[in-house]
Amino acid sequence: MPRSLRVHLLPSLVSPEALAGRTVIVIDVLRATTTIVQALAAGAEAVVPCGEVAEAKRLAQATGATALLGGERGGVKIADFDLGNSPSEYTPSVVRGKRIFFTTTNGTQAMQRCRAARRVLIGAFVNFSAVCDALREVVEIDLLCAGTDNQITREDVLFAGAVADDLIEQSGGERKRHYDISDQALIALDAWRAARDDMRQALPLVDKLRSSHGGRSLLDLGHDRDIDLAADIDRFTIVPELDLASWQITTMPNRS
Amino acid sequence: MPRSLRVHLLPSLVSPEALAGRTVIVIDVLRATTTIVQALAAGAEAVVPCGEVAEAKRLAQATGATALLGGERGGVKIADFDLGNSPSEYTPSVVRGKRIFFTTTNGTQAMQRCRAARRVLIGAFVNFSAVCDALREVVEIDLLCAGTDNQITREDVLFAGAVADDLIEQSGGERKRHYDISDQALIALDAWRAARDDMRQALPLVDKLRSSHGGRSLLDLGHDRDIDLAADIDRFTIVPELDLASWQITTMPNRS
Repeated sequence: MPRSLRVHLLPSLVSPEALAGRTVIVIDVLRATTTIVQALAAGAEAVVPCGEVAEAKRLAQATGATALLGGERGGVKIADFDLGNSPSEYTPSVVRGKRIFFTTTNGTQAMQRCRAARRVLIGAFVNFSAVCDALREVVEIDLLCAGTDNQITREDVLFAGAVADDLIEQSGGERKRHYDISDQALIALDAWRAARDDMRQALPLVDKLRSSHGGRSLLDLGHDRDIDLAADIDRFTIVPELDLASWQITTMPNRS
Repeated sequence: MPRSLRVHLLPSLVSPEALAGRTVIVIDVLRATTTIVQALAAGAEAVVPCGEVAEAKRLAQATGATALLGGERGGVKIADFDLGNSPSEYTPSVVRGKRIFFTTTNGTQAMQRCRAARRVLIGAFVNFSAVCDALREVVEIDLLCAGTDNQITREDVLFAGAVADDLIEQSGGERKRHYDISDQALIALDAWRAARDDMRQALPLVDKLRSSHGGRSLLDLGHDRDIDLAADIDRFTIVPELDLASWQITTMPNRS
């Protein structure tokens, strides 16, 4: 039986039912999934995705001293929150041992599409190879791009294409024999391969991220450094996983 | 002022208001826009896009002897219709001087998104260069992919990328100076450029169309020949235009 590899360029392009029983990678490179990887790698106990600001505040208050509030609206830190959505804020000295109640405009909403999935993993360039390794034996894979305000953003599509490319290459490169691939996955693959060809000509990934819709918005807000961090491929080796029963993200146990 | 070039990978990804005042190219390569170009090139007087089968029948009856009914549901010719949605059916002996009341699953719906546009042109690989020429002096361009049943289809994205590529190349290739380009346009550009590189290695366009979601559906229905016709780049030199006031598609007058 061929494996199934699908990409969704936006959450609204797939129904929760269509994700039932599948392994989903949630992708919001600029910045939610990059920040979540950073937070857990820095020693946070868990990240709890919250749909609304009020919900995050309520849960944090109930948790007490180990709680931190993190997130953004319109790219800007929320009033009364401890942290924004810049990965650079999530340092060990700040987050170690903490539970982070986290709400962002796009990434959190993408996760809420996944309620019927079998497993939900968190991916970004900073944990690229770890994500690919975690998918090696999985047969039904969905790569879910968060986008920005229901607009497709190139940085998420590039990451989806990079993962698809790696999985296909590792399976021997004969994609038709090994994978049933959706049209959106083919489009993401083409986008990534074009970017990779540019990278071979010394145009680094960070330039691609700067010129995307999401990248330009961050530059407008003065978050240049966040783009550099988001483009730092394989900085971390962890894969965060959203547990659907307890609705919290922790580091997936290393199975080696 | 830079020109604006946007791609929408599906009609649902853009609101009618966002298309207000702009020049929109409607793209449904497999098969509606290919068939419309074919029909007008074969001498049809006009193609009238209809949302519903009943509407098409009512208008055809009111028109009388010069009317033909054309279109599909689920890729199959509609009961009591004169023609399906295969370009090969629209020969001069059948359609010359006729008004074709035309309804298809995806293409017609894409046109209905364009009610507020300034102009609406009809594009497919069969009139690729003519479309590009018509856009040479236009400053606000939207390339609208029809998709299939609200799924992004690669053949439409490839055509959008091909037009974007031509416009950028003709403007000198320095896209940043000349065009403000949306992320979806960059993704379509990458998809087209990857396909073009394959074509240089003797993998023809028709193979790309066969392997797309829409292409596979047509092969399942036995419409192999339609894919060959849809891949016949620049077979025609006309550009059909949808007149929004009279809601009919006729051949755009040649301005040379």
